Amino acid sequence: MPKISEKGKQMPASPIRKLTPLAEKAKAEGKKVYHLNIGQPDIETPAVMLNAIKNIDFKVWAYTASEGTVAYRKALAQYYNKLGYNITPEDILVTTGGSEAIIISLMTCLNQGDEVIIPEPFYANYNAYACQSDSVVKPILSVIDNGFALPPIAEFEKSITSKTKAIMICNPNNPTGYLYSRQEFLDLKELALKHDLYIIADEAYREFCYEGKEFLSPMHFDGLEDHVIIIDTVSKRYSACGARLGCIITKNKAVMEIALRFAQARLSPGLVEQIAGEAAALHTPDEYFKEVNQEYEKRRNILVSSLNKMEGVFCPNPGGAFYVVAKLPIDNADRFCKWMLEEFSYENQTVMLAPATGFYATKGVGENEVRMAYVLNQTDLTNAMICLEKALEVYPGRTLASDKKLTNVHL
Amino acid sequence: MPKISEKGKQMPASPIRKLTPLAEKAKAEGKKVYHLNIGQPDIETPAVMLNAIKNIDFKVWAYTASEGTVAYRKALAQYYNKLGYNITPEDILVTTGGSEAIIISLMTCLNQGDEVIIPEPFYANYNAYACQSDSVVKPILSVIDNGFALPPIAEFEKSITSKTKAIMICNPNNPTGYLYSRQEFLDLKELALKHDLYIIADEAYREFCYEGKEFLSPMHFDGLEDHVIIIDTVSKRYSACGARLGCIITKNKAVMEIALRFAQARLSPGLVEQIAGEAAALHTPDEYFKEVNQEYEKRRNILVSSLNKMEGVFCPNPGGAFYVVAKLPIDNADRFCKWMLEEFSYENQTVMLAPATGFYATKGVGENEVRMAYVLNQTDLTNAMICLEKALEVYPGRTLASDKKLTNVHL
Repeated sequence: MPKISEKGKQMPASPIRKLTPLAEKAKAEGKKVYHLNIGQPDIETPAVMLNAIKNIDFKVWAYTASEGTVAYRKALAQYYNKLGYNITPEDILVTTGGSEAIIISLMTCLNQGDEVIIPEPFYANYNAYACQSDSVVKPILSVIDNGFALPPIAEFEKSITSKTKAIMICNPNNPTGYLYSRQEFLDLKELALKHDLYIIADEAYREFCYEGKEFLSPMHFDGLEDHVIIIDTVSKRYSACGARLGCIITKNKAVMEIALRFAQARLSPGLVEQIAGEAAALHTPDEYFKEVNQEYEKRRNILVSSLNKMEGVFCPNPGGAFYVVAKLPIDNADRFCKWMLEEFSYENQTVMLAPATGFYATKGVGENEVRMAYVLNQTDLTNAMICLEKALEVYPGRTLASDKKLTNVHL
Repeated sequence: MPKISEKGKQMPASPIRKLTPLAEKAKAEGKKVYHLNIGQPDIETPAVMLNAIKNIDFKVWAYTASEGTVAYRKALAQYYNKLGYNITPEDILVTTGGSEAIIISLMTCLNQGDEVIIPEPFYANYNAYACQSDSVVKPILSVIDNGFALPPIAEFEKSITSKTKAIMICNPNNPTGYLYSRQEFLDLKELALKHDLYIIADEAYREFCYEGKEFLSPMHFDGLEDHVIIIDTVSKRYSACGARLGCIITKNKAVMEIALRFAQARLSPGLVEQIAGEAAALHTPDEYFKEVNQEYEKRRNILVSSLNKMEGVFCPNPGGAFYVVAKLPIDNADRFCKWMLEEFSYENQTVMLAPATGFYATKGVGENEVRMAYVLNQTDLTNAMICLEKALEVYPGRTLASDKKLTNVHL
């Protein structure tokens, strides 16, 4: 039998999906499972976007330009310019989801073995994209105690080598929900210019910022035109994860030219998606975002306040996205999450969580942390929190609140 | 300014699309341009597929499983089993177009520097996929004089090294239209088993075989279960290039497991596409394929007979797909194709062709060959052929039919 590649063997399996068979088993046994483990929102896609699909009037489902249709890129430019990005359609390359946008960006900018610095915890698939593009992730620890703020710039400086080519951030952050501040961006800007690094900013959750907090993009800062690459997707903005429609935005012409070659090789992004994306960009009412934001903010409040009321639990109150990372009084998150599915139930219900270990590149960190996505309605969320509280009361691997283990990774 | 990656610099620009700006200019000047250069069919997508798009009834445009929906994979398995593939839905991984299927297959099976043998001329983007996956294409020359049949197995044997991991074929072939015979598959089977090589078979044009000729797949041959990887796409089958919906089929469990990891990293293929693909797989009437095949066969006949009537032109009569590669009495195909757009017109019309050089990996081969896609209606095709004939009469770089240059690459 012919052999599998080394890269293939190194590709990480999804830590978010790896517990899925256990959840399936629990459900087959009749248990209700609250899925807080994945970022698939229950929010409805805007009607204007779904109607655009229903109203397609082409006869031939044809390729589009590899960089995306002019019409969609114009609509996107208009949307981004309302946010102050000051771009043209030529600064946009339409991609098959945010995933492809990241892979193409890494392949365009990094040589084999080049390093990208990413504050951890970070979206677990970044590891897979780095593996696929032969680049190396250098994690820098952000900590739960200050809500996962940007690690001190001194830590970045310490990590920079001759191989460092980029800093990647996700803002608002998946998995922590942290929303980066103006000062943090100014610090990152100085660092990027000093060491001539790309800033790759994943803005998948841009639309979800709470309590009127300001969303900032590196696109808002002058002097970074050659350094900034924005990763975007319609997945979360319009609750359209299955559209697989994203984009790269950059004012760096050399990056755009080479990224386009990777895009040309895969021919074209989807036609129907671009038609729907154009309608969404141009015609989604402000009311839609307002309502969705209010809903998410209420859910966040339920989650954060419920969690912080539980003994030994700490959950920062994040400024954006729809995730929290919480510290639980447990010995090991992987074990706990597995136990929740296999052994625990409360009134025939349980909760599926994502162990935070999968979001850290550093081994042994985050072992008492879990990520939760608040993608369920408020009633289900409330029930899930009751269920979690009951679980923590009886979990055999529970640690005491005063237990050193609970906090020592952050000392 | 931060640097671009070496891989990015090496990524080939699309040879099929590189003349596009000249065509745009010709059109802006009022010339009619017959596009025989690209594989975008004018054939209508089956109504059943377009109606499935129009009838979507979900409220949340959600992710699907990374390997594709169960419903779509079941429908595909049914379609393939009618063709005698003898597979289950578990042998199918749904991908974002045939392009992604090839990239994932190469990344799964080949290490950096590993070699894949491909008979040339071959689909130009294979070079890009090899570059992207750090593998190396080893071309073996197939020649126009025998209609681009599989090169002698002795030639493959000569090319095999310790780095050789796979043989890739496209059947029916793009760009030559050649349809591989049973004997050729038996030869390939023996070779693959002898050297333990993967056979990666791109079957994008499976549906288009003429004069009742038999389509064969390596899936039809026993004993290759661990060796065969089929690449497929709905792009040509249903004239749905803009759907970006393909798949990998393999009975090799190890390949499937690792391919799935790459698929998990990019989360999901498109939901709407899979709904439409399911409808197409289950409900496209046989009549549709019959009509489309008849239309393509008529077009092929127009093209091939017109070409062979022109002085100094030779065009084999291919058994499938919707391409031909023809030998023209010209000094240089790149120069000729450029000249056609920039300097020539006949009754204010011209023809856009793809220089065959872009389909050969070996430098200097195919310099008097062009690829033509018969994706225009019969009237346009006839006019395009008149136009080409007139062009060849006046082209300054015309060679004599007896000129050695015309055939020496095949001696």
